Amino acid sequence: TRRPVGRCWRAALVLARTRVVALGPSAGRRAASGNAGELRGEPDRFGGVSVHLAALDRLDAAAFESALRAAVHQWRSEGRVAVWLHVPILQSQLIAPAASLGFCFHHAESDSSTLTLWLGEGPSRLPGYATHQVGVAGAVFDESTRKILVVQDRNKLKNMWKFPGGLSEPGEDLGDTAVREVFEETGVQSEFRSLLSIRQQHGSPAAFGKSDLYVVCRLQPRSFHISCCPHECLRCEWMDLGDLVRAENATPVTSRVARLLLYGHREGFDKVDLPAQELPAGAAGRPSKLYLRALPARPG
Amino acid sequence: TRRPVGRCWRAALVLARTRVVALGPSAGRRAASGNAGELRGEPDRFGGVSVHLAALDRLDAAAFESALRAAVHQWRSEGRVAVWLHVPILQSQLIAPAASLGFCFHHAESDSSTLTLWLGEGPSRLPGYATHQVGVAGAVFDESTRKILVVQDRNKLKNMWKFPGGLSEPGEDLGDTAVREVFEETGVQSEFRSLLSIRQQHGSPAAFGKSDLYVVCRLQPRSFHISCCPHECLRCEWMDLGDLVRAENATPVTSRVARLLLYGHREGFDKVDLPAQELPAGAAGRPSKLYLRALPARPG
Repeated sequence: TRRPVGRCWRAALVLARTRVVALGPSAGRRAASGNAGELRGEPDRFGGVSVHLAALDRLDAAAFESALRAAVHQWRSEGRVAVWLHVPILQSQLIAPAASLGFCFHHAESDSSTLTLWLGEGPSRLPGYATHQVGVAGAVFDESTRKILVVQDRNKLKNMWKFPGGLSEPGEDLGDTAVREVFEETGVQSEFRSLLSIRQQHGSPAAFGKSDLYVVCRLQPRSFHISCCPHECLRCEWMDLGDLVRAENATPVTSRVARLLLYGHREGFDKVDLPAQELPAGAAGRPSKLYLRALPARPG
Repeated sequence: TRRPVGRCWRAALVLARTRVVALGPSAGRRAASGNAGELRGEPDRFGGVSVHLAALDRLDAAAFESALRAAVHQWRSEGRVAVWLHVPILQSQLIAPAASLGFCFHHAESDSSTLTLWLGEGPSRLPGYATHQVGVAGAVFDESTRKILVVQDRNKLKNMWKFPGGLSEPGEDLGDTAVREVFEETGVQSEFRSLLSIRQQHGSPAAFGKSDLYVVCRLQPRSFHISCCPHECLRCEWMDLGDLVRAENATPVTSRVARLLLYGHREGFDKVDLPAQELPAGAAGRPSKLYLRALPARPG
């Protein structure tokens, strides 16, 4: 899963550049025969080539389109299977010309976009972009009192009991999201214990049409005073776990996880927990966490 | 999680349109005082406003920038907290002008991009785009012979035993990805039984810097003849589960899941499985699957 480090390679073609002038793009064509630059492509080990447009150059759209057409023709003749085009947001006037040659968006974020063109045989085999958003809820359960922390949303699912939670932020571990969201919504501090369940859903408008994973974690309370977030919560309370199991106004996932917790409270949480194991960086290039059932000491 | 259905609302401003002319954008400025159009914004229930640019209109960049500036000024004065700008790819000449007003990319896919501008107080509270890519591997285990299907990758992790698997496609259930990837890589047909483990990793270059979830599912074999995919697999075989547990050239996740399977084979897979439960569409707006430990019949 390492990124290609192909030597820098030059497409033998010339691309017109112009100075930034108040008159804007129209000046580009007039100056199209001005000082010349080059369009660089970096090959990758998968048979593709990447082009990174510089943020500062002011490229003329028409000249760029003809230059890109010639470059694509050459790359195709060399057997390249794909072209990756990286465009700084202020160079976005070059996107439409690329699109007219068949490029389409792979993804975009913040101040740049990436377009791709598949040159290989058959349908594109290029890897897609992120497909899932991940929401994490925290089931904060106090074994000594058998009370569990539940909330009712202000915006959606009114009057339905559920566990506090929210969307995982970029780079955030599942357990950390649960602890953070529980604190933000209820003011209760807690510690991650295990992963209990995962729900998958597709095409949610709230996920911009992407898929959604909703994870419920078991958390150990470290504080008990509730200060409910007025923007997010309608109600928030410590409820007896048995009452939550019997409650009719609880979401389906909440009810099922409540039954699982009741079983774990009686038989031992080792029967229902997926605790986290740290995996060494060596394993998959960078450190990671693995969630799976812990086994008894007895050699497996 | 429903999308807002605000009534259509008109920003009181005028935006210049021009005919598509061979001379391109430069003609736009000359025709800027030509036939007038309007920029429409649709309010959403979260206090934001969405603008959908038409795919066919040929909008002049400079006129669009001044019109958008005026519209943003008005929306800000009305207390709107955010602006969502949806841009067809062939209208991408309008992205840089929006960026110069502070807009940045939220996401882009295929033939359109979406930009946002936060107008509320403090840092943006707008929901992010998909944060995770999801890979799924299939641990195809034959209880009668205690053999498990393992492969060695051709590209990466050479000579390390692992379970066949790959990236989940948009809208594909976890179990379906495992069954599909196992068949594509090994030719073995199988059926989903349960979810066994989840690994989370962040910032993987292979995930374009996003996070990666790697799920291992337990599958029941339906056929046993192996036809190894030469593009993906170096080796592929049915290995005794005990040998895989003891193998030194297996990935860390593979070794841990192998031990889990050995325990399940001895004590019963109900002890390690997270089988799938269908959740009714009523639940969260659309049908979904919930993976969690199944409980014994005895009332929980």
